[in-house]
Amino acid sequence: MKSTLSHLRGKALTFGTGLVLLVIQNALSADDPLPSWNDTHNKQAIINFVKTTTDSSNPQFVPPEERIATFDQDGTLWVEHPVYTQLMFCLDRVPAVVAAKPELKNVEPFKTVMSGDREAIAKLPMKDLEKIAAATLSGMTTEQFQAEVKKWLAEAKDPRWHRPYTELTYLPMQEVLKYLRANGYKTYIVTGGGQDFVRVYAEQTYGIPPEQVVGTAGATKYGYERDGKPILTKEPKVVLNDNDAGKAEGIYLMIGRRPHAAFGNSTGDQQMLEYTKAGEGARIAMLVLHDDAKREYAYGPAQGLPDSKVGTFTQKLYDEAQRDGWIVISMKDDWKTIFSNQVNETK
Amino acid sequence: MKSTLSHLRGKALTFGTGLVLLVIQNALSADDPLPSWNDTHNKQAIINFVKTTTDSSNPQFVPPEERIATFDQDGTLWVEHPVYTQLMFCLDRVPAVVAAKPELKNVEPFKTVMSGDREAIAKLPMKDLEKIAAATLSGMTTEQFQAEVKKWLAEAKDPRWHRPYTELTYLPMQEVLKYLRANGYKTYIVTGGGQDFVRVYAEQTYGIPPEQVVGTAGATKYGYERDGKPILTKEPKVVLNDNDAGKAEGIYLMIGRRPHAAFGNSTGDQQMLEYTKAGEGARIAMLVLHDDAKREYAYGPAQGLPDSKVGTFTQKLYDEAQRDGWIVISMKDDWKTIFSNQVNETK
Repeated sequence: MKSTLSHLRGKALTFGTGLVLLVIQNALSADDPLPSWNDTHNKQAIINFVKTTTDSSNPQFVPPEERIATFDQDGTLWVEHPVYTQLMFCLDRVPAVVAAKPELKNVEPFKTVMSGDREAIAKLPMKDLEKIAAATLSGMTTEQFQAEVKKWLAEAKDPRWHRPYTELTYLPMQEVLKYLRANGYKTYIVTGGGQDFVRVYAEQTYGIPPEQVVGTAGATKYGYERDGKPILTKEPKVVLNDNDAGKAEGIYLMIGRRPHAAFGNSTGDQQMLEYTKAGEGARIAMLVLHDDAKREYAYGPAQGLPDSKVGTFTQKLYDEAQRDGWIVISMKDDWKTIFSNQVNETK
Repeated sequence: MKSTLSHLRGKALTFGTGLVLLVIQNALSADDPLPSWNDTHNKQAIINFVKTTTDSSNPQFVPPEERIATFDQDGTLWVEHPVYTQLMFCLDRVPAVVAAKPELKNVEPFKTVMSGDREAIAKLPMKDLEKIAAATLSGMTTEQFQAEVKKWLAEAKDPRWHRPYTELTYLPMQEVLKYLRANGYKTYIVTGGGQDFVRVYAEQTYGIPPEQVVGTAGATKYGYERDGKPILTKEPKVVLNDNDAGKAEGIYLMIGRRPHAAFGNSTGDQQMLEYTKAGEGARIAMLVLHDDAKREYAYGPAQGLPDSKVGTFTQKLYDEAQRDGWIVISMKDDWKTIFSNQVNETK
């Protein structure tokens, strides 16, 4: 009887200790809004920014309605290397465009794309890629386009990880998005990519609704179907080129407030970060440096990394970041985990 | 002593009855989200729409993230007759523009505006008004423009009621805005007026933040001041003409979702209402008819009202409303009170 009692007492003690540990663990993770970040200065800078701007007794307090945070997408929230996801979509749509307009079959750059010669396709200059974008992203109603993108995203897979593109988002950045939103920040995507394209999946993938996605936007034309039903048709005409200076201009056009926080990863984000930092009060500007060849990729001329067709991170941009107090995030050193959705990072 | 007692008892009774009446009144007004509307079918239609779309057991339930309501401004939320408020701002800015560029002094239409001849100014054709808008709404930084608008709004007064323009908003529509927001709707202004202009006061005047104001928008140009500070300069180039078909196109560009509710008052709102009503599920489209010459104005060719330079409400539009199930609000019959801010309506 006694032994049973002490056995029970021991169990209770073990249970009690376990409970205490569990409580401590929960308290720690509740205290840590960014668990997939290593405990670095950069992680602390984000936490300090949020604490400072949401503490009403702090002189740098930011009223809730002014809490705007903007995020580049390609290379900042998800993988962009070796090719932008949207470009893959455009290339995959070329056969359908050529089927509808057979006269394009022997016209460049469609001829090269139809040949399937990967090396030749990879060498197509920007001017040709723009022609492909214009042809594949217009001529249909907005609803037809949304359906096309949805279908493609459900089937297409990244060539390295063999996962849908929407599963290759960065967990540390997803945590930043959630952490900012939990503290009253409105999070926006401000992408050089197509606004219409990103809006199709941003809500499900990032928790960012269509109206908070700003991107390169084409014109639409209002008209009527035969039965009189109004439709919007996508036109091959750019209304907003949301790259470089266009990002600051696009933020003004679409949001009308200067962000307090901005995140990017390339020269295309330079003006957005400058514009953000130039505001009064607490502002944070961050750049993701792709320096993790093992778990993701290492590219961009900054710090001697190899050059890349995407997400150019020049030494000049790196120098401006140092000078202007922007934070450069090292994927290798700052991020404990890279991907959401249990992607095998050693693949 | 007895008389004192019964006197006290009487007081208590009176007080008690008053309290009961007060409680009943509060209960009634708590039940009535639109107290400045008369008890008409139109008022009931708004209430039915909100109840239907927010009741999760109703087949026409609308998920919170899809609850978008768009409002034209001039003539729908505030007075537009006899001249759009923003045009008054532009005319008032002409002397400053001419002072900065004296060569304009003898060039039309600036010469006519500088002459102060009200009749001649009223006769200026649309092309001249566009020239005045381009000259007075560009050439400064976005911050300078916002400061100019704020200053002007603080001083300018409507010629009939001698009140600041921002005090001449319609109380029944302010109630609709609040009622929709209280039921999870995101309320947007979608105006033919200048997006930058309306964004300056929309938050304070209507509770609508800048990022929920869509309007006719000019381009900006990113650049740097001498000290290297980034600035955005307003350019005389239209990016979005948010009138007519431009309203549906602008909604797609800036919001990316089709509204479930849309409110307008003129042919400029036709496509926005068509686009709204063409969506699936519960949709409401409403037009404000200015038929109250006594308390506000009566204009627009519909129903034999006099024609006007602003807010054209044609018979054709009226017929489409009847055919397509849009609701036409009669200011005279549907609205108990017209103005917010205790404006003397008989003036």
